[in-house]
Amino acid sequence: MEKIAFETPDPVIVLVRPQMGENIGAAARAMLNFGLQNMRLVAPRDGWPNPAAVAMASGAGRVLDTALVADDLAGAVGDCDYVLATTARLRGLTKPVLSPERAMEAARAMQGEGKRVAILFGPERAGLENEDVALANAIVTMPVNPSFASLNLAQSVLLMAYEWRRQSGNIAPEVLEMAKTERAQMHEVEKLAEHYEARLDEAGFFFPPEKAPGMKVTLRNMWSRMALTRADVQILHGMLRQLLRAKK
Amino acid sequence: MEKIAFETPDPVIVLVRPQMGENIGAAARAMLNFGLQNMRLVAPRDGWPNPAAVAMASGAGRVLDTALVADDLAGAVGDCDYVLATTARLRGLTKPVLSPERAMEAARAMQGEGKRVAILFGPERAGLENEDVALANAIVTMPVNPSFASLNLAQSVLLMAYEWRRQSGNIAPEVLEMAKTERAQMHEVEKLAEHYEARLDEAGFFFPPEKAPGMKVTLRNMWSRMALTRADVQILHGMLRQLLRAKK
Repeated sequence: MEKIAFETPDPVIVLVRPQMGENIGAAARAMLNFGLQNMRLVAPRDGWPNPAAVAMASGAGRVLDTALVADDLAGAVGDCDYVLATTARLRGLTKPVLSPERAMEAARAMQGEGKRVAILFGPERAGLENEDVALANAIVTMPVNPSFASLNLAQSVLLMAYEWRRQSGNIAPEVLEMAKTERAQMHEVEKLAEHYEARLDEAGFFFPPEKAPGMKVTLRNMWSRMALTRADVQILHGMLRQLLRAKK
Repeated sequence: MEKIAFETPDPVIVLVRPQMGENIGAAARAMLNFGLQNMRLVAPRDGWPNPAAVAMASGAGRVLDTALVADDLAGAVGDCDYVLATTARLRGLTKPVLSPERAMEAARAMQGEGKRVAILFGPERAGLENEDVALANAIVTMPVNPSFASLNLAQSVLLMAYEWRRQSGNIAPEVLEMAKTERAQMHEVEKLAEHYEARLDEAGFFFPPEKAPGMKVTLRNMWSRMALTRADVQILHGMLRQLLRAKK
């Protein structure tokens, strides 16, 4: 018997009474940059569809094409299970205030239960009204510099979308890009070490004699620590050969 | 004896051969949004100072005023201990590739040792050249949607600055904004519970009698779970009184 998966919708980005079409288009781009595609618009000032939004969105036009439009906020989030209101300032409302990090953790957990999360962004100038915020389960506030806090609409959307994506957990923490090569095997590193050791010995590098064993260990250790690729090994062999050839 | 603190400089944002002054100004704003103030410019196309940059920066002009300008990248990062190159694509260079998260963790650790970290951003169109990337200790790549990866210069700076700030650890994970009120004390909640219990009892709510004790516990538990404020308690008392008054 197969387990039936819940539908797990990505968060809905709700622009509440947005003013400039350009900003709606830029918000669509910011969403798509981090893989979000569900946009809803509450009473956009200049009506809908909006050619300025389409022009700005360019490659992200599909986000606008599928955007839902509602007359009021309650209508826009009626089917949502958890609503977050982004605001830059406290509101005189008794309500939890989350960092983007904690907010997207909560959203991720909700999504795991098949629930729909909405994130509200206010109009460009004034931000959300208190009546809007009152409909939300929690407030999200960006950890901006208090003495220079200005973020535009698309930037706010970008940061929340980034934070969502960051928490998806499928981002490789660190990879090593291997450019047309692979790590050298131990025997290759060993041969390189021998090559250098022999030539350096001939050159009288390991002096005085009682210090030679320690110096050789140090050198071996250096080669192994370097995480050499095959290409590195070839270059290092070539360097040594060329240096000696030039000397003759 | 007092411990002598190392100077712990914030990361240096290095714009390599930036083209449009507007983008330099927007990058300065993005930096200051999250508290970064050290900008360096490598061979800005239109010279320096640049009036278009100043106009765009508006409140972040001080970042431009203190920006250092260098002819080449090596000159710009000569005093830095750890250099990160932001790129959108792999480069055919064998080098660690970090997420912004891991990169800023590393930067934070370096800062803790009094070391200076630089983050490189390339020109608007083409991004960093491989020769630039070769000078860096590691590559940082944004976890963008592969099928819509376009980020402009100021957006890239904004996201790295946000990630730096996020990792500063002095962001409160969650606070509860208390609007001109405070949490009700236990005795206030108790009185409220008694008030409701008494009136509900009179109204015959706790029926049948054998179920009354369990119903009362459930109700008490509800009040305590609600994390009521003093204002809430007053409203709830008032609601009950008004309901009963209206009935008469």
